[in-house]
Amino acid sequence: MFSFTVESQDSSTSARAGRIQTAHGEIRTPVFMPVGTLGSVKAVHQYELKEAVQAQIILGNTYHLYLRPGVGTLEKAGGLHRFNSWAYPILTDSGGYQIYSLSHKRKISEEGVLFSSHIDGSSHVFTPESVMDIQRQIGADIVMAFDECTPYPCDYAYAKSSMGLTHRWLARCCRRFDETEGLYGYGQTLFPIVQGSTFPDLRRESAEVVASFNRPGNAIGGLSVGEPAEDMYAMTELVCGILPKEKPRYLMGVGTPSNILESIALGIDMFDCVLPSRNARHGVLYTKRGIIHIKNLKWKEDFSPIDEESDCPSSCFYTRAYLRHLLHSKEILGAQIATLHNLSFFLWLTREARRQIQQGTFFEWKKHLLPELERRL
Amino acid sequence: MFSFTVESQDSSTSARAGRIQTAHGEIRTPVFMPVGTLGSVKAVHQYELKEAVQAQIILGNTYHLYLRPGVGTLEKAGGLHRFNSWAYPILTDSGGYQIYSLSHKRKISEEGVLFSSHIDGSSHVFTPESVMDIQRQIGADIVMAFDECTPYPCDYAYAKSSMGLTHRWLARCCRRFDETEGLYGYGQTLFPIVQGSTFPDLRRESAEVVASFNRPGNAIGGLSVGEPAEDMYAMTELVCGILPKEKPRYLMGVGTPSNILESIALGIDMFDCVLPSRNARHGVLYTKRGIIHIKNLKWKEDFSPIDEESDCPSSCFYTRAYLRHLLHSKEILGAQIATLHNLSFFLWLTREARRQIQQGTFFEWKKHLLPELERRL
Repeated sequence: MFSFTVESQDSSTSARAGRIQTAHGEIRTPVFMPVGTLGSVKAVHQYELKEAVQAQIILGNTYHLYLRPGVGTLEKAGGLHRFNSWAYPILTDSGGYQIYSLSHKRKISEEGVLFSSHIDGSSHVFTPESVMDIQRQIGADIVMAFDECTPYPCDYAYAKSSMGLTHRWLARCCRRFDETEGLYGYGQTLFPIVQGSTFPDLRRESAEVVASFNRPGNAIGGLSVGEPAEDMYAMTELVCGILPKEKPRYLMGVGTPSNILESIALGIDMFDCVLPSRNARHGVLYTKRGIIHIKNLKWKEDFSPIDEESDCPSSCFYTRAYLRHLLHSKEILGAQIATLHNLSFFLWLTREARRQIQQGTFFEWKKHLLPELERRL
Repeated sequence: MFSFTVESQDSSTSARAGRIQTAHGEIRTPVFMPVGTLGSVKAVHQYELKEAVQAQIILGNTYHLYLRPGVGTLEKAGGLHRFNSWAYPILTDSGGYQIYSLSHKRKISEEGVLFSSHIDGSSHVFTPESVMDIQRQIGADIVMAFDECTPYPCDYAYAKSSMGLTHRWLARCCRRFDETEGLYGYGQTLFPIVQGSTFPDLRRESAEVVASFNRPGNAIGGLSVGEPAEDMYAMTELVCGILPKEKPRYLMGVGTPSNILESIALGIDMFDCVLPSRNARHGVLYTKRGIIHIKNLKWKEDFSPIDEESDCPSSCFYTRAYLRHLLHSKEILGAQIATLHNLSFFLWLTREARRQIQQGTFFEWKKHLLPELERRL
């Protein structure tokens, strides 16, 4: 069970507002998806995610969940939704990105990837088929194809051959996915991933190949890995021009508030990023008026609320001085408050973008807001 | 503003149910007070403390708050209640215990204690007068006298001379406290502390001296520092027989659920301990049916709620397998869930003790419950 409806199309940009239906409920787009690496969005309760953050869908990382708690446990639980008591939509990545960024050693072949666990060094193999099976066991509503995410910079020859491998793996992912069924009585949906680094001809080719698979939604990977923002936007624009309009587009691992607004304007519907939650734990807070480095001395005796304009109750309840003190003292509550704040802000940002698209004011609103978002308070 | 009313007296033990009035609201006793070392009960939001845990009063540690955020900041905030947004009663200890347990080096003299910070090694002096002033700046509803907490074991001569010092310091604390006023428009109350290690004659003398100061409430310190439980109970019983019945009695740093029930039976009204919160972070959970070591393999695939009998919503919401996974993976949410669980249990325990006292069934209830509480599940 999966459907996507475009409800409004912005007249001056490629932004659109839509609705995705999944077995675990509806997702109104554009949407930001908080990252719940190990089945938990760090420092946030599931009911806070729903109520304070207003999250509609969260991510799980296949690599992490495969290692801990392990797919055997997840299958016995009846899938990740049952395991972590999050009854709403979940998306899982394919594990590829973590293999490349976390695993001690890895060996890529046509068959798949041999890698060693970052926890205990044990050896494991992921293939397109096994990753589909694992994501069946996890039971996310949206599952991602197994790809190779190229680093930046990346030479043309490597990017081209890697892209070819990603496409061959995609065919294997689709075959395996279509031969199998969800294990828990509800349907799942597979999204393929466009690669091609920052090379326009490769991105074009990859987008065409991916579109030809005709899956219910499509993703763009391999961006936000260190390339200049202009390259990211150029590749996103090019790919969005090829991926079908009637299907949701997911830009993986993006990004800053500005990145998100610019990419919405290019036609992106879905985002995920660890930025708001990770930066929260380091004291970087996002607001409508700019960025607060809350650990700075400047905030030591600021007894005003963290952000009175926030939708997040705790950002109106606690003071800046208190949050600064908690983060300096490494108190867990500091991570809790800051994470709630940033995730609420990212969810507000995509929710407000949706509203502006619907009322035809997205372009003006974005133009006005962008310089505010970058300001350092 | 402070008053205490004994509402019910148990017929077969010295247990009683009462009410304390403070400027920040009422406390129904017996009561367990969660420890909020640095102005935060680790991993728990203030609104969760009130709603899920049903805490009535929390502790702050003078030593920690003096070092971070510092009393200057707290005074500018308008006191700790304003700083941490906890609008209900707060008690602060005198810092003595932390000086002895945390500080790198310390030198005790008649005047006070010279110690170095555990954070940066800087030198500081606490005297009975300065500790009263600091607690005025923090602004807790109940403040504690500056004492020396003797270690266990402790030889008689040292215990006797230390007790003498504690009594002379108490006189200085009372003088300074009575010469000064609360800084924030509400009254504060000073509790003296009985010392005397495990020596009955010293405990008797100390209780008599403390009682003679005729303060609105009294505390028993220097117990739960490693002595056998029988010694702790014997000293508590002896001291409770001397401290006036019409004033609340606070047994500092106690303890396990069994310790709390036995001490309620001896006439104690108030408790604090890091045990429930610290043990929570290590995966030790307290329930009405015994103790769960949630990190054990036994719970790996137990998909039942953490504790269906808990008053704490999250203990009914999440599963044992999930909490085990979070604690093994060092996810912050694990500490959050486990801490909420244990604090809820300790608050339930004292609330239920109160109810049983009121209905005249405390003794039977305690006798039945004690073996359950010690059982390992």
